[in-house]
Amino acid sequence: MTALWVIVLCGALSIVYAIWATSSVLKSDAGNPRMQEIAAAVAEGAQAYLRRQYMTIGMVGVVIFALLAYFLGMLVAIGFLIGAVLSGAAGFIGMNVSVRANVRTAQAATTSLAGGLELAFKAGAITGLLVAGLALLGVTIYFAYLTQFMGLKANDRVVVDALVALGFGASLISIFARLGGGIFTKGADVGGDLVGKVEAGIPEDDPRNPATIADNVGDNVGDCAGMAADLFETYAVTAVATMVLAAIFFATSPLLVSMMTLPLAIGGVCIITSIIGTFFVKLGASQSIMGALYKGLIATGALSLLGVAAVIHWLIGFGELAGVKYTGMALFQCGVIGLAVTGLIIWITEYYTGTDYRPVKSIASSSVTGHGTNVIQGLAISMEATAMPAIVIIAGILVTYSLAGLFGIAIATTTMLALAGMIVALDAFGPVTDNAGGIAEMAGLPKEVRKSTDALDAVGNTTKAVTKGYAIGSAGLGALVLFAAYNEDLKFFIANAPKHPYFQGVLPDFSLNNPYVVVGLLFGGLLPYLFGALGMTAVGRAAGAIVEEVRRQFREKPGIMQGTDKPDYGKAVDLLTKAAIKEMIVPSLLPVLSPIFVYFVIYAIAGGGAAGKSAAFSAVGAMLLGVIVTGLFVAISMTSGGGAWDNAKKYIEDGHFGGKGSDAHKAAVTGDTVGDPYKDTAGPAVNPMIKITNIVALLLLAILAH
Amino acid sequence: MTALWVIVLCGALSIVYAIWATSSVLKSDAGNPRMQEIAAAVAEGAQAYLRRQYMTIGMVGVVIFALLAYFLGMLVAIGFLIGAVLSGAAGFIGMNVSVRANVRTAQAATTSLAGGLELAFKAGAITGLLVAGLALLGVTIYFAYLTQFMGLKANDRVVVDALVALGFGASLISIFARLGGGIFTKGADVGGDLVGKVEAGIPEDDPRNPATIADNVGDNVGDCAGMAADLFETYAVTAVATMVLAAIFFATSPLLVSMMTLPLAIGGVCIITSIIGTFFVKLGASQSIMGALYKGLIATGALSLLGVAAVIHWLIGFGELAGVKYTGMALFQCGVIGLAVTGLIIWITEYYTGTDYRPVKSIASSSVTGHGTNVIQGLAISMEATAMPAIVIIAGILVTYSLAGLFGIAIATTTMLALAGMIVALDAFGPVTDNAGGIAEMAGLPKEVRKSTDALDAVGNTTKAVTKGYAIGSAGLGALVLFAAYNEDLKFFIANAPKHPYFQGVLPDFSLNNPYVVVGLLFGGLLPYLFGALGMTAVGRAAGAIVEEVRRQFREKPGIMQGTDKPDYGKAVDLLTKAAIKEMIVPSLLPVLSPIFVYFVIYAIAGGGAAGKSAAFSAVGAMLLGVIVTGLFVAISMTSGGGAWDNAKKYIEDGHFGGKGSDAHKAAVTGDTVGDPYKDTAGPAVNPMIKITNIVALLLLAILAH
Repeated sequence: MTALWVIVLCGALSIVYAIWATSSVLKSDAGNPRMQEIAAAVAEGAQAYLRRQYMTIGMVGVVIFALLAYFLGMLVAIGFLIGAVLSGAAGFIGMNVSVRANVRTAQAATTSLAGGLELAFKAGAITGLLVAGLALLGVTIYFAYLTQFMGLKANDRVVVDALVALGFGASLISIFARLGGGIFTKGADVGGDLVGKVEAGIPEDDPRNPATIADNVGDNVGDCAGMAADLFETYAVTAVATMVLAAIFFATSPLLVSMMTLPLAIGGVCIITSIIGTFFVKLGASQSIMGALYKGLIATGALSLLGVAAVIHWLIGFGELAGVKYTGMALFQCGVIGLAVTGLIIWITEYYTGTDYRPVKSIASSSVTGHGTNVIQGLAISMEATAMPAIVIIAGILVTYSLAGLFGIAIATTTMLALAGMIVALDAFGPVTDNAGGIAEMAGLPKEVRKSTDALDAVGNTTKAVTKGYAIGSAGLGALVLFAAYNEDLKFFIANAPKHPYFQGVLPDFSLNNPYVVVGLLFGGLLPYLFGALGMTAVGRAAGAIVEEVRRQFREKPGIMQGTDKPDYGKAVDLLTKAAIKEMIVPSLLPVLSPIFVYFVIYAIAGGGAAGKSAAFSAVGAMLLGVIVTGLFVAISMTSGGGAWDNAKKYIEDGHFGGKGSDAHKAAVTGDTVGDPYKDTAGPAVNPMIKITNIVALLLLAILAH
Repeated sequence: MTALWVIVLCGALSIVYAIWATSSVLKSDAGNPRMQEIAAAVAEGAQAYLRRQYMTIGMVGVVIFALLAYFLGMLVAIGFLIGAVLSGAAGFIGMNVSVRANVRTAQAATTSLAGGLELAFKAGAITGLLVAGLALLGVTIYFAYLTQFMGLKANDRVVVDALVALGFGASLISIFARLGGGIFTKGADVGGDLVGKVEAGIPEDDPRNPATIADNVGDNVGDCAGMAADLFETYAVTAVATMVLAAIFFATSPLLVSMMTLPLAIGGVCIITSIIGTFFVKLGASQSIMGALYKGLIATGALSLLGVAAVIHWLIGFGELAGVKYTGMALFQCGVIGLAVTGLIIWITEYYTGTDYRPVKSIASSSVTGHGTNVIQGLAISMEATAMPAIVIIAGILVTYSLAGLFGIAIATTTMLALAGMIVALDAFGPVTDNAGGIAEMAGLPKEVRKSTDALDAVGNTTKAVTKGYAIGSAGLGALVLFAAYNEDLKFFIANAPKHPYFQGVLPDFSLNNPYVVVGLLFGGLLPYLFGALGMTAVGRAAGAIVEEVRRQFREKPGIMQGTDKPDYGKAVDLLTKAAIKEMIVPSLLPVLSPIFVYFVIYAIAGGGAAGKSAAFSAVGAMLLGVIVTGLFVAISMTSGGGAWDNAKKYIEDGHFGGKGSDAHKAAVTGDTVGDPYKDTAGPAVNPMIKITNIVALLLLAILAH
């Protein structure tokens, strides 16, 4: 009881921080009128897009809300609503800060790199802490409402279903936002570059390019709002899955409430350590931006170690735990492993995407022999980049399982995600500086400003890859947790078959001997591939439409290129808005409908009845693992590979292998273009896709039980 | 007894056919002295490479032979030797025919397209029938020797182990040949194109390019010898796995010998139908090459239906079968499904790689907006191309399992592969016509000859993709069979623990709840990615070396470009030979060592003893499925995507989107270059990689049991 209110307090702290930081950002100098005009156009486009995106998702959401209310009751439907609204809010607020911080960062960068970093990072930290804080508040308050106010038992089915539905609400926003935003931003980026840089020979962010504003809008709706929704979802779903497991494993234990509170408490304490960590981000004498960010991250990590220890001491103690074979100490060690996995994944991702190491250099050097070899080497690196993270995840699973079984893995994953506030802060400053660079270019600010924002942006490429690796890594580590939630739920319904007659005689068999399991694995495995294909095609189509539009404007208004006529920026934004909204629907519904489709098809093929149900439940369960087994590799290869391509181009632009304008540079631009939809559309959307498949499977169980 | 000798007779027929066809090929006109000179250079290079490759594999082979002889006895080691030698022989003979048929095809194409097709196809059919025939003879004769001459029981451990070792021998040759040949051919192709077409602006196969001969050598060692070894292995391993299952399922049944003979008999009858089918390949009035090939394939398929029916009638009858719940009729239906899966995969692959359909056209059209969009669309298509084959495989598993359980799946896979003779024939004519085109170009034959060989070559791109899809598809369909062989073997040893004390107290748990299973799935899933990365990098490196070498020759002998000096072709061949041999070692050993590595690492982590063994056996089993779950998608996406890129280029060269020399064409050349290592090195090598992982796991069991 007390614990929950302390956790709520921690969550509230994140909001206090956000308000303070926002007012501090807004107080800084917003630059000259030209800069403000450009920023206003970007803000307007971003808000218009987000409004439309949320309206579209809203329509899908209303249908799902009604279905959930009908099948599972109002409390569960409200859980769904809370998850969806808060996830949307995190993205919306973050984006609104971002579109105000961009111009101020450009202005601050006119005086110093440190000033630019401080402002941009503060803006990022607002998004980061809101993501973690709102997710924590949503889950905690609704859990408190259901258990304290409504008086339900902590592991009552309604509580569990409502929490799962909350995760579903977050996931639904997340997949649409990731995909829609990703298609928008990369359609603008790829299309704008092709027709501007390649055809017209004008630099990136040149105000004569009608797609420039759209490109900057895209940074905000894709890299900021989309990413925020994704991490909100990852955070919420992991916390919920851990709580569901606690509800099952400790159903008869006096520790039930403490154990269900534990993931929330870890989240709460890590919000405080994340807030403290943000104050450590300061540019040192070495002027290393990555170094400044690492200081903040390391401070947060070290403090979190203490924080998690304190939480465990306070809630359950380090000693023996009633009813289980592991100690509180073992759970603490699992938390430490979660932090270690985070650190290792960050380190590996930096190795594969940073300009200082072999992978990026090898792509840059293979650009010398042409477009083809650049892409071949990039693809090779993208595939190679999956090996070490996979091994870290495998090691994490093995060690935490040996320490404290499934619940140990869950605690490790929770602790890993508790750092989300800080990690998202590291990422969300990227689009702000990217925008700042665009505004500097368009407003004709001195070259040094662009140099500062470019330096910040290069680091942003790595931190963006890191966040995505982190999100998908947590899904990999949590694979067993998500599967276990499904399996334990299923066991629960079967054990209570008299109350849930649908499960009478059901006997699922998750052994690899069972052909339905193999079929499920293969079907799950196919989802990330099909999903990725749809995402890539959508970007290609959107980019093609932009190319046509820009060509049309250049043709019909020859004054644009001479600078005597103004391009119609709004047209490109509008076109992309429509394209992104239209293209996001089908791929987003793929993971929502797949578990249902697989269930009923296998049920029918296996002859219906209890045998059909058993086969279908087995196939759906295997599908949940299949989607992770390929999804992990698809997502890591795409996000790391894309980051490496992008930085290989930057490495050449820094003067290696012939520098800007050389043939090697042209080849590197091709690689960067290929990497764009890889790293910002298809790759990152795989993570919410995996989660949504899992969550829908859990809801399917609940609905069948009714 | 009689049955085995009839099967041997069928196998012998394939050799008779090969001898007849070879003499008929050799009798045709070998062209003018210039053509013969070029062909001789290609033949010399190919033979030199293959000799060296076999010597290197031989060294690895001797070590493995000694290990097998020591651990499992001489009979098992001899099985390994038979598999390795026959697989090598199929590739060696096929390649030797191919390097003689190329020049004769060029000469025949001077008179008519039909003449070129007939000669090239006959050469391909020699390789095809030798692959199927030698594999069948090897397995059948050794099985007959062990059971009839040595008097061992059909399901004696020695017989089973010897057959598995035979599969291992074939797999070992296969992975080295696929990878080594793939690195050679694509290093030459990519490197030669980059420096010739792109830098020097001379056409493909121009005699002034020092890498031309190497490129033609590559076609023979990669596309011909490598592919032959791969299909030999697939055929042998599938037959062996089915026999192993029969040995287990019918251990106490009077049908034991008949059931173990059944896969061999299906193979035998399909050799006859394949030979008949080759005579149906005739260019019709429509001049459709694909149509001519389809006539042969359809004839073979239709006759095989009757053939399989006859075999089942003769060996086991259509009625009830003693000791199992399914009938002979059900097994026949499984065979029909195997044929249907083959047909569907061919049709889907043609859709994704043929120039008449949306996918290839979409890549061609996206080339208009540049290199980047071509690659993006190509990647999107490559991922999309996995969905339908996966669904066909899933359907195949579901239906055959419901008809006749695991053995039904095995019979379907066997029947699918029984068509290998015909399928390989469709594929192996590709490198012959590719070479013929090269020889025509280098010898300065009239343009029409090149047009004919190009037309044949375009179809070859599709049939090449088909063969690879077919091979990997059979692995997907057979996934459960391979896993079952492992699982049943393990059960056997556990049940006979008194005789095999190592297995005392071992209790493997293949359920998805088991974290060791999840870890195994993830580790298996990572293998195709790491393997693909190594393969792609190797091609990039080899191609880079070729670029340097050709640049050096152009620089040091300026007369080459004027046509007054001759390039040193041998240097490029020699360089690639060394590079390919060196680069193939590490990736080839990855799947050989992985099962052993996983077993002992997990054994140690899980605390040793019986619990450690149980965990380790579970993880290794899961790894076998993990490697298929990602491998299936990696391989199909690479081979179909690569084929689509290649034909998108051809589509543009046919005059669409600006035709040859346009910007779209340049972009399409980039896509083709990227697709090269995808479709001819990394992608196809995944299939033997999967098999070898499975076979090594089986051998590991056998060794631990000793």
